[in-house]
Amino acid sequence: MDVQKTTINALRILSAEAIEKANSGHPGIAMGCAPIAYTLFQNFLNCNPLDLKWNNRDRFVLSAGHGSALYYALMHLYGYGITTEDLKNFRQLGSKTPGHPEYGHTPGVETTTGPLGQGIANAVGMAMAEAHLAATYNRPGYPVVDHYTYAICGDGCLEEGISYEACSFAGANALGKLILLYDDNDITIEGDTDVTFKENVGARFAAQNWQVLHVDLATSPDDVVALSDAIAKAKERTDKPSIIICRTRIGYGSPLEGSEKSHGAPLGAENLKKSKEKLGWKEEEPFACPKEVYEHCALAANAGAEKEMLWKKMFAEYEYTYPELAQQYKDAMAGKKPDFAAMEDLYSFDKPMATRGTSSVVLNKIAAKLPTLFGGSADLAPSNQSVMKDTENVKYGTFSPENYAGRNVHFGIREHAMAAICNGLQLHGGVQAYCATFFVFTDYCKPALRLAALMGLPVAYIFTHDSIGVGEDGPTHEPVEQLIALRSIPGMKVYRPADGKETAAAWISALTGNQPTALVLSRQNLPQYEGSGKEALKGGYILEDCEGKPDVLLIGTGSEVELCVKAKEVLAAKDVQARVISMPCIEEFEKQSEDYKESVLPAAIKARVCVEAGSPYSWYKYAGDKGEIVAMNTFGASAPAKQLFEKFGFTVDNVVEKAIASIENNQ
Amino acid sequence: MDVQKTTINALRILSAEAIEKANSGHPGIAMGCAPIAYTLFQNFLNCNPLDLKWNNRDRFVLSAGHGSALYYALMHLYGYGITTEDLKNFRQLGSKTPGHPEYGHTPGVETTTGPLGQGIANAVGMAMAEAHLAATYNRPGYPVVDHYTYAICGDGCLEEGISYEACSFAGANALGKLILLYDDNDITIEGDTDVTFKENVGARFAAQNWQVLHVDLATSPDDVVALSDAIAKAKERTDKPSIIICRTRIGYGSPLEGSEKSHGAPLGAENLKKSKEKLGWKEEEPFACPKEVYEHCALAANAGAEKEMLWKKMFAEYEYTYPELAQQYKDAMAGKKPDFAAMEDLYSFDKPMATRGTSSVVLNKIAAKLPTLFGGSADLAPSNQSVMKDTENVKYGTFSPENYAGRNVHFGIREHAMAAICNGLQLHGGVQAYCATFFVFTDYCKPALRLAALMGLPVAYIFTHDSIGVGEDGPTHEPVEQLIALRSIPGMKVYRPADGKETAAAWISALTGNQPTALVLSRQNLPQYEGSGKEALKGGYILEDCEGKPDVLLIGTGSEVELCVKAKEVLAAKDVQARVISMPCIEEFEKQSEDYKESVLPAAIKARVCVEAGSPYSWYKYAGDKGEIVAMNTFGASAPAKQLFEKFGFTVDNVVEKAIASIENNQ
Repeated sequence: MDVQKTTINALRILSAEAIEKANSGHPGIAMGCAPIAYTLFQNFLNCNPLDLKWNNRDRFVLSAGHGSALYYALMHLYGYGITTEDLKNFRQLGSKTPGHPEYGHTPGVETTTGPLGQGIANAVGMAMAEAHLAATYNRPGYPVVDHYTYAICGDGCLEEGISYEACSFAGANALGKLILLYDDNDITIEGDTDVTFKENVGARFAAQNWQVLHVDLATSPDDVVALSDAIAKAKERTDKPSIIICRTRIGYGSPLEGSEKSHGAPLGAENLKKSKEKLGWKEEEPFACPKEVYEHCALAANAGAEKEMLWKKMFAEYEYTYPELAQQYKDAMAGKKPDFAAMEDLYSFDKPMATRGTSSVVLNKIAAKLPTLFGGSADLAPSNQSVMKDTENVKYGTFSPENYAGRNVHFGIREHAMAAICNGLQLHGGVQAYCATFFVFTDYCKPALRLAALMGLPVAYIFTHDSIGVGEDGPTHEPVEQLIALRSIPGMKVYRPADGKETAAAWISALTGNQPTALVLSRQNLPQYEGSGKEALKGGYILEDCEGKPDVLLIGTGSEVELCVKAKEVLAAKDVQARVISMPCIEEFEKQSEDYKESVLPAAIKARVCVEAGSPYSWYKYAGDKGEIVAMNTFGASAPAKQLFEKFGFTVDNVVEKAIASIENNQ
Repeated sequence: MDVQKTTINALRILSAEAIEKANSGHPGIAMGCAPIAYTLFQNFLNCNPLDLKWNNRDRFVLSAGHGSALYYALMHLYGYGITTEDLKNFRQLGSKTPGHPEYGHTPGVETTTGPLGQGIANAVGMAMAEAHLAATYNRPGYPVVDHYTYAICGDGCLEEGISYEACSFAGANALGKLILLYDDNDITIEGDTDVTFKENVGARFAAQNWQVLHVDLATSPDDVVALSDAIAKAKERTDKPSIIICRTRIGYGSPLEGSEKSHGAPLGAENLKKSKEKLGWKEEEPFACPKEVYEHCALAANAGAEKEMLWKKMFAEYEYTYPELAQQYKDAMAGKKPDFAAMEDLYSFDKPMATRGTSSVVLNKIAAKLPTLFGGSADLAPSNQSVMKDTENVKYGTFSPENYAGRNVHFGIREHAMAAICNGLQLHGGVQAYCATFFVFTDYCKPALRLAALMGLPVAYIFTHDSIGVGEDGPTHEPVEQLIALRSIPGMKVYRPADGKETAAAWISALTGNQPTALVLSRQNLPQYEGSGKEALKGGYILEDCEGKPDVLLIGTGSEVELCVKAKEVLAAKDVQARVISMPCIEEFEKQSEDYKESVLPAAIKARVCVEAGSPYSWYKYAGDKGEIVAMNTFGASAPAKQLFEKFGFTVDNVVEKAIASIENNQ
């Protein structure tokens, strides 16, 4: 038995059988790409299946996430804990083998993929984290952080804009330990890629400062030697990321080989049978696999275990020699955070300031205490105020090929890749990622924000210029529907603080727990409130209360809290008692006890006004049948901000009027 | 006076003065890029300022939309109707000169730009429309459609993923009459582009099958001859799009030249004064400009008028020779639509069918009557069922360099560029654009959808696989928050039809009026309802009513209407009277008279259940204080669809239970 060939075929057949049983899935990539995956897992990937969380393991990303069946077959053969039973339950409710690889669901899966191009950017983030941590923690003779990041992608990933952005960033930053394996099978769902994708991919990557290597598996399908040579060359070259362009045949071995028909549907019993014949697969029983294959794969697993053991020995010496540094490294990898409750100075503000400014103050105080804080902006750092500024005590520096230890990042005008790279940073571990852009440009990075929420990654987003307060730049730059767009993502936290203390709470919340958090911040100055503070951690609270039972509840967020506070005064002069509720984070408020929520928003008080310079959709729930909403029902306009707030009804007078209307509505 | 030089300086100074007066704007690009804009407008752009809507004008897109001041200065000098007063009102409320160029607001502006990269993709769409219309309508000796599309972009546009996608598409489709002028000034907001953008842009574009030309304005700042030579070369080469890489100095002529400080803030009075000195600008009065400059620019305007006159003469002959074709061309450019009201057959369905299937039926019936219908999918045509299929009477063909007359488009796996290209198609006129992808991937194209809504472009979007009905592909492919994300965009229409007749209404609505429309369609089969029909054009209507006053209102959309209909029966057996309201389009429903809305959703009936497999945020308004919402509060999962609907509470039993709960809640 040619065990190498049989193992590659085992990947093909187990994948096809899982898909067949589920009656759903993508056999084409599994069968075409199996030799690439095999070569990587058998000969290169440093990973110990018995300790899938080993910090210094090589990272592997299946960016072409629809190849999940192949991935599960790999994880089965290489002892990652995927059983034959799991393969049989492919794509079934609650199984360990869902339709696309899911981080946090299947042990060993490094990131959730499926939406094309995301995995490549995640891999860039992982390689970036490796470079940063290596520069920070390694010492001569002690390469405690020293691994490669591999990603497999197909045409789909490379047609998506995010892949160009991420690869441009990787090239500019010379991330030499990133290796991209491109399954170049010339086929996408609509047929031959030539119908719309004719670029010279090698020249494209060379233009982006990558090493470009080629392997022809279309002519020589299971050429593990050529693949191994190419991967070895890619590993050698550490001043540039490498792409290995592997010409393959989609659906190799099946009667649908070379056709888009093999892409997204089961082969069918007859074709599966013929595939087994063509590939010389002897097992008739579905999911059966020769024991020689398992033994062969166990060699790689054993090698991985030995690698980890050697690393641990090295780490023991490192720890002995550099005890403090080793502790810092362990803290970083464990995601340790400072004791925020003890950082009282985070809440100290007096003068009016834009919340992008208060965010900068808080960010910088936290940065001094949180050495893993690492991030930057999509070319808007001065506007986002997202820079960690050097002080006498700390020099943060800028991440670059000359200084990978730098903690400030120039992501470039690449919002989408930025957010997906941050997912990769967070997935790698050892850094606390943050990134920044104008709030309206969350639209450019939404797919990556969604994946952060789906994976439960606590990335912190600084989103400034949060409303028509943008002013002169006009409607293209003024968010309207972005608050509801983010709030409606399950698992996303959206904080829109009203002042400095609320900004501090927002940052603390962002850096605590396992949810991504958007910090939605003003361009324009806002007052500091006496009544604000740590209560903002509850998401919503009484900022200013009246005497006795309120006649009306005024609920606002961010810059519009000021209108509520001023309206309260005007109403008081009219003998109307108003309570002002600041609601910086609806998601955190909803997590509070029913008693607490009732104490803030008594169900019996139905006269309410919700005020927010965004889509009204966020507020129907809180306004209720008798409440009023002051919101944006149209796009903004270009003019000085103050005029825009007036034009669109964000005035004290209007809030007062709506409050009275709501009270009357209730009588 | 060197009038050429003075005109270029006039563009610089008028821009800087407008920005100074507004105390807001971007002088850097205006001063660096003025010679490029001048050369284009003076020597090449075929446009008649007296008839800015001339069909065969060259199209010009300022993709770097923050250069708006330069654009308005151009429009002022070249007689587009921008007065000195307008320049003085730059970025003021209601002025013709808003912060970024706005289509539909300032005559002559071809597209709204500002969000980076969008303009390039719009220009690709315009060039594509030109190629398609030329292939369709031109006849030997009668090039009635024959113009170029020019776009100016900067580093920002080229760093964005959408630009790579769009340019890859343009290269693959050999759009030879597209010319991109790249203001390569090496500076972005965070400083030198080298901090993160090091790619070889020429090699990148060559890899994408573009002609690459170079002009060095950094050394020879006002080299109109070199620019003219390059543009002439670009025009000559018609089998490839061309990029002219113009090395420039940001903020040229000002003391901030070469610095990011000139990018996004007024120069300041002192620097403006020094700029005038350095450039040899004699006018002390702000906004003053020598009459020689106006006379010089008028030459270009006159040439444009002559060009249009010659074209009209040619068109008269064409019309005489090909009367039918000429009429078709005029109808196409006028956006003429068939009489949908007379197309009764659009509403004919009997068997259960997925709405992606009913959409295909309707699309194909309409395609036969609407010769301008032009579009395709982002590589999901078989799944989206978005193809216009050849019949005996019509051969639609596929758009490609070999057949620009083809009406089906392979957009590639480039959702973002696809949507922005459709904006360009629609802006050009002569085609009715549509495009398709999975609904969850609207996240990838959101910025372009937003701009379609802002511009009022009636692009039709086919978004299939609209919920957890996706099934096995799992949470990455299952939309949850996408309905509310689109509904909250001002001006966007979102149709989620429940059956074939509602799908017909959705298509008709999409092709009528001036709003983009999302058709949100199921993967799985749905029944056909007797009570559905043209009422769906009203957005919401009574699909099945009870006898007498309803005890409860059941409100659903799309696939969940079936649950409401079945729950009604179950409730009836319990002596509970339910009305079923189908609400395929909230936006259209909200446009109806208060009387109509009250007749469908009587305010007095507060027992309500809203059922939709999406975020509950869409429904608080309609559920009200006493209503219940059956919605998705988490991400989906990977499993057969039927199991998912059960798991997440989308069952008849649950709707019945919620209906009874809501009734009890009201007692």
